[in-house]
Amino acid sequence: MELALLYSGGKDSSLAALLLDRFYDVRCVTGTFGLTDDYEHAEAAAESLGFPFDTVELDQAVAGEAVELMQEDGFPRNGIQRVHEHALETIAELDVDAIADGTRRDDRVPTISRAQAQSLEDRHDVDYIAPLSGFGRHAVDRLVDDTFEVEQGPSEEIPKADYEGELRALLVEEHGPGAVADVFPDHEQTYVHGRTD
Amino acid sequence: MELALLYSGGKDSSLAALLLDRFYDVRCVTGTFGLTDDYEHAEAAAESLGFPFDTVELDQAVAGEAVELMQEDGFPRNGIQRVHEHALETIAELDVDAIADGTRRDDRVPTISRAQAQSLEDRHDVDYIAPLSGFGRHAVDRLVDDTFEVEQGPSEEIPKADYEGELRALLVEEHGPGAVADVFPDHEQTYVHGRTD
Repeated sequence: MELALLYSGGKDSSLAALLLDRFYDVRCVTGTFGLTDDYEHAEAAAESLGFPFDTVELDQAVAGEAVELMQEDGFPRNGIQRVHEHALETIAELDVDAIADGTRRDDRVPTISRAQAQSLEDRHDVDYIAPLSGFGRHAVDRLVDDTFEVEQGPSEEIPKADYEGELRALLVEEHGPGAVADVFPDHEQTYVHGRTD
Repeated sequence: MELALLYSGGKDSSLAALLLDRFYDVRCVTGTFGLTDDYEHAEAAAESLGFPFDTVELDQAVAGEAVELMQEDGFPRNGIQRVHEHALETIAELDVDAIADGTRRDDRVPTISRAQAQSLEDRHDVDYIAPLSGFGRHAVDRLVDDTFEVEQGPSEEIPKADYEGELRALLVEEHGPGAVADVFPDHEQTYVHGRTD
């Protein structure tokens, strides 16, 4: 069965790929607004894990909405959620049996409720799978330590493709360089370089 | 890493075993009140899939509470939930890194909330994993069709070890044969005989 996994090159979506690999033909897919080349980091990570990779084009109007939300809120959560939902809707249109993402049990954002999952499945005639939603933070960290070579650091220095880079770029364009620091607090990101085994 | 999976021999916990097998040394564990030999069905199913198997002894007082709940309610849900929580608490005491069960996204019972999961982990210093909680009914059914030889039929005719057999036996003992029909509506059960591949 063909599955499209929304993929950023980070530890969560990389772990999701390996979990799903037991049952599905997994393709790692990164959504891009065409604003930066960040998707290349996801492509390199997917390649290092041996998965096929694709990009899908996201709607720039949604990036605009997300940036306005984040600017108004003063935090990124609702903007990231908006983009994630749009990205799931987009990959649900691909010719696959199932779609998936790397959301975890303990994530505050993005989250897909049971009702949203069912709606996505019914409208697109596709299975939506969140293989890490039954794993807590500690369990994920242990599996990641056992499985991947990971680079960790502040968000702005770690090469990833989780929309954040593109939304940062658009924030600067629309609201000036100071807007990024207002919206995004410093936090750590990870990037997968390959397996340890 | 060692993982104890609460195992019934049914399709859900069998699928959970295969998903977890990628990352953990999975042991299938069936809780028993010592009222019937139903655990032997789970043992045979685990053996057919190539997983090690154990039983753990559950507290008969909990079976008594569960049967009283079911009898009062006129339906089994709260009694089954009570026993499932007790079984998770019991396997959390084993010398393992993680415990797991086969609960799915669309299950009405048993369910373990995010708060319950966190509490279980904190109190027992163990990871709790629900590997199917990100899979809907349709996705599980497709994977099961691809993966297992399954026998399906009415609950009372399908050999399984999901507490229901023992609770039925105790209901009869405490409240007479009519009590079972009052509490358990007819529904279909499955039992795994092995892999198709």
